[in-house]
Amino acid sequence: MPRSVAGPEIERLIQLLARVPGLGPRSARRAALHLIKKREQLMAPLAGAFGEVLGKVSTCRVCGNLDVRDPCSVCIDETRDETLLVVVADVSDLWALERAGALNAKYHVLGGTLSPLDGIGPDELNLKTLVARVHGGTVKEVLLALGATVDGQTTAHYVTELLRDCGVKVTRLAHGVPVGGELDYLDEGTLAAAIRARTSF
Amino acid sequence: MPRSVAGPEIERLIQLLARVPGLGPRSARRAALHLIKKREQLMAPLAGAFGEVLGKVSTCRVCGNLDVRDPCSVCIDETRDETLLVVVADVSDLWALERAGALNAKYHVLGGTLSPLDGIGPDELNLKTLVARVHGGTVKEVLLALGATVDGQTTAHYVTELLRDCGVKVTRLAHGVPVGGELDYLDEGTLAAAIRARTSF
Repeated sequence: MPRSVAGPEIERLIQLLARVPGLGPRSARRAALHLIKKREQLMAPLAGAFGEVLGKVSTCRVCGNLDVRDPCSVCIDETRDETLLVVVADVSDLWALERAGALNAKYHVLGGTLSPLDGIGPDELNLKTLVARVHGGTVKEVLLALGATVDGQTTAHYVTELLRDCGVKVTRLAHGVPVGGELDYLDEGTLAAAIRARTSF
Repeated sequence: MPRSVAGPEIERLIQLLARVPGLGPRSARRAALHLIKKREQLMAPLAGAFGEVLGKVSTCRVCGNLDVRDPCSVCIDETRDETLLVVVADVSDLWALERAGALNAKYHVLGGTLSPLDGIGPDELNLKTLVARVHGGTVKEVLLALGATVDGQTTAHYVTELLRDCGVKVTRLAHGVPVGGELDYLDEGTLAAAIRARTSF
């Protein structure tokens, strides 16, 4: 246990910052000192941003996204194509797809993937609302944007079965060579999938 | 400009987090999502810690340290040896020395090093209070814990001159091989200093 370098208030700030992903014990000290030095320019606005989010953020009742409004900013965005519903495991996946900028669709966040070993069964996921949304009639295509992991693929199969009688097209993301990826670093499964799904040049 | 992945409140949180040292644009998103998910366990306590520090932290009038009390926690700590005064450039250096745990002394934070090119002269540093403290009569030794850089050494020489007639012992940190360091990665200057300052085994 190293001795405290400052009063208990600053020590507590350092300890809390060390729990933020991306910051370790050492970088938390650097971050704390920077925040203290830039308290007007950075700490005060950050405290304000926390205040905006704290107590206001909630899980969207329609899609499971996290936002300060419910329904969330994505659900109330009327410029999005309502006929395409993208199913993701987590809010972080929704954010990643939005960053890619290749979609202008609505989302549905399952809140995880099926994982019997971790005790996550269908009842733990946001599936009832998904079926209800798809039954609503507006959706024409459900894109299962789930990870290419065992849990992700198990979940994809389960959702496909669940939506079998809904009369919607169910699609999944393509497998293939990552953009910028070098062939000899890729695993055999990815290469085989890329060969099978080859397209004309 | 990527499109926003969430409402403006969460986007603003991400943008502010990206300005924290140690977090980049991508890790700021991960940090923001983690903070939102753990809003009760992490964001609320962090907001509280900000509140404890904001508006209360100030520069210690005695030593130049940053703390929520003035004089600071280090200056009011009566278990510390008042006869040893450690001069550092920045609060981060004070923190680093405290982590080492090898000192139980008082500190004096200059607030930088002399750097004519950056317009930092003696008047920009916390030197008047240093001379006053040393003239106070309690201090027996002044340890100049300044970086082994050109600016750090220039500052050390300047402070030594400044304290020449004060009747105190002025010392500096030893140069040598870093603990855990391998010889063939070390620069010649460090090796030469380590040889000159060799000690009996």
